[in-house]
Amino acid sequence: MIIYSHNYLKEFCRTVFTKIGCPEREAELAAEVLLSADLRGVDSHGVARLIGYVRLWEKKRINPRPNIRVVHESPSTAVIDADAALGLVVAPKAMEIAMEKANNAGTGWVAIRNSNHFGIAGYHAMLPLPLDMIGMAMTNASPLVAPTFSVERLLGTNPIAVAIPAGEEPPFVADFATTTAANGKLEILQRKKQEAPYGWIQDAAGDPSLNPHELSQGGALLPLGSDRERGSHKGYCLGAWVDIFSAVLSGANFGPWVPPFVSFLPVAEQLVGKGIGHFLGAMRVDAFRPVSEFKTGMDTWIRRFRSSKTVASEERVLIPGDPERMMEAKRKEEGIPLLEPVVKDLQTLADRFGLTFKK
Amino acid sequence: MIIYSHNYLKEFCRTVFTKIGCPEREAELAAEVLLSADLRGVDSHGVARLIGYVRLWEKKRINPRPNIRVVHESPSTAVIDADAALGLVVAPKAMEIAMEKANNAGTGWVAIRNSNHFGIAGYHAMLPLPLDMIGMAMTNASPLVAPTFSVERLLGTNPIAVAIPAGEEPPFVADFATTTAANGKLEILQRKKQEAPYGWIQDAAGDPSLNPHELSQGGALLPLGSDRERGSHKGYCLGAWVDIFSAVLSGANFGPWVPPFVSFLPVAEQLVGKGIGHFLGAMRVDAFRPVSEFKTGMDTWIRRFRSSKTVASEERVLIPGDPERMMEAKRKEEGIPLLEPVVKDLQTLADRFGLTFKK
Repeated sequence: MIIYSHNYLKEFCRTVFTKIGCPEREAELAAEVLLSADLRGVDSHGVARLIGYVRLWEKKRINPRPNIRVVHESPSTAVIDADAALGLVVAPKAMEIAMEKANNAGTGWVAIRNSNHFGIAGYHAMLPLPLDMIGMAMTNASPLVAPTFSVERLLGTNPIAVAIPAGEEPPFVADFATTTAANGKLEILQRKKQEAPYGWIQDAAGDPSLNPHELSQGGALLPLGSDRERGSHKGYCLGAWVDIFSAVLSGANFGPWVPPFVSFLPVAEQLVGKGIGHFLGAMRVDAFRPVSEFKTGMDTWIRRFRSSKTVASEERVLIPGDPERMMEAKRKEEGIPLLEPVVKDLQTLADRFGLTFKK
Repeated sequence: MIIYSHNYLKEFCRTVFTKIGCPEREAELAAEVLLSADLRGVDSHGVARLIGYVRLWEKKRINPRPNIRVVHESPSTAVIDADAALGLVVAPKAMEIAMEKANNAGTGWVAIRNSNHFGIAGYHAMLPLPLDMIGMAMTNASPLVAPTFSVERLLGTNPIAVAIPAGEEPPFVADFATTTAANGKLEILQRKKQEAPYGWIQDAAGDPSLNPHELSQGGALLPLGSDRERGSHKGYCLGAWVDIFSAVLSGANFGPWVPPFVSFLPVAEQLVGKGIGHFLGAMRVDAFRPVSEFKTGMDTWIRRFRSSKTVASEERVLIPGDPERMMEAKRKEEGIPLLEPVVKDLQTLADRFGLTFKK
């Protein structure tokens, strides 16, 4: 582990995005979204992915100078064609449109096609918070998940994020994959040479497996719920919902056709849409209730849940967003630890673009 | 088990709702919503609950002649005070408002306070389908669920339903509690004197339990995911999201303050809102994309998932809504089987109101 300051990493990412041709402001934005993942402790979605984006650019699957445009709209909705933009850049732009719609119509909902991986969903969902709006963000992703009863990988880890403002309390920020565990958690177990818990994965025949390498042998991640008896069909419903809102509403690829994030896997030949899809929403709180009443209610909600009696092994019940907020405060102060392979990837990028990345 | 025709049961329910003072049209609607649960195989939410509604009316917690009114609105949103109406009646009325908003603004979102149990979420979510709209329905409910790390019951089984139209294929209809299993499943195990699977419940100390009677001894249902290792914090996020949208946005009671459905349990003394809350949405498909393109996409989605290779023990991968649709066809033809205790409750109601209920 080597520790880097948030600013050092952000500046490095910004420069790399500039080197692949992004305009200054978009490079800055992309770097900010990536780093927000590292700050919040979602290491799998931060600088560790920078080299992945660059490789997609090398394969011409990312367009650094996209013509992002609204192709369809109504007072409270829009569909955006991202022109193969970085998802990191198009999602905040789309959320701006959603917030503008919400300003006028009460709510705003934007579906995006022809995009790429947008980083952590939570970043985008939190953008409306300062305007006293609720934010939502979903995206589909590379097919790694088997629906209940299937042995095929037809869905991504398809996350949902919901951010809700409070008054004196910090906001409620839920941000979770619709699977039992995200793929990043498996990678950690692989490095530690540990077994996975029951319910995370199945093997190529669809039988439960504890082998964290199962995905490279035809296995699949499991929907939230783990198995039929414990409600995996509900996790499948959630993942399917995200897929349909993100991609069938927008005209992106869905299900097994979603282009993989890793550039070494081929894109399906007969595509059903363009790129990957996202779905974002903003709801003005005062389109429902005076903001002060709502915030008082949220503070009461949060305080009641946080003060709940706990099981013996735990000190307190967490509010969605608590762990990430605590991590962000810590890492802003103490820096962001990177694993050796991530540092190596960043040095590779430094060499590639004639930059330096300190070790 | 005794078999009754759908029409016989519906007529009986309609008459009972009339007897408690509902206007003709509202009694008809309430009976239809109840019976839709029995038809779709969600037996816990159908005629088995009729006596529960009557008992709430006896305690003056249900108002059969409510003044349902919009108390706040924007082009795409509304908040409704249900005046202690039957949720069965107010939810379809609120969905009409959501659909009207969607007609004008692209989407419509209605939060409802001061309501009661609204039956199955799926019924309401499906109302927009014939208009080529996507429907959504959520509700909070009696606190039976412990958030991750908590030993207190702070959330209901808080279901989410999402109904999405297709073209030649039947619609996609997801309708699920945000817990591992709904309470009705536990009641079935109690009757059969069987243990519950691991991950459904915890005891009063928060330890895993297989005892289906645990809820009467201070235990709790568990959020979807079962335990922390398998993602119960995600199920907790889902249940919390439903609670906040249904109740903090509308001004209903939330969390542990939600008034219990069963009339013999007391309502909390210091309430934080009015009645229970729901949240409904309608999104016009052509606010995003031409309807025909969308429906073609949905047909492709559905056919690809339905034709997926399955695990050895199963014949096919189901699409959300498949099991309920098949059950509805069967029960419309063959009738609805009722358990002895349910028949007894209905006969009690018949005696109470001077009606007959055949055995």
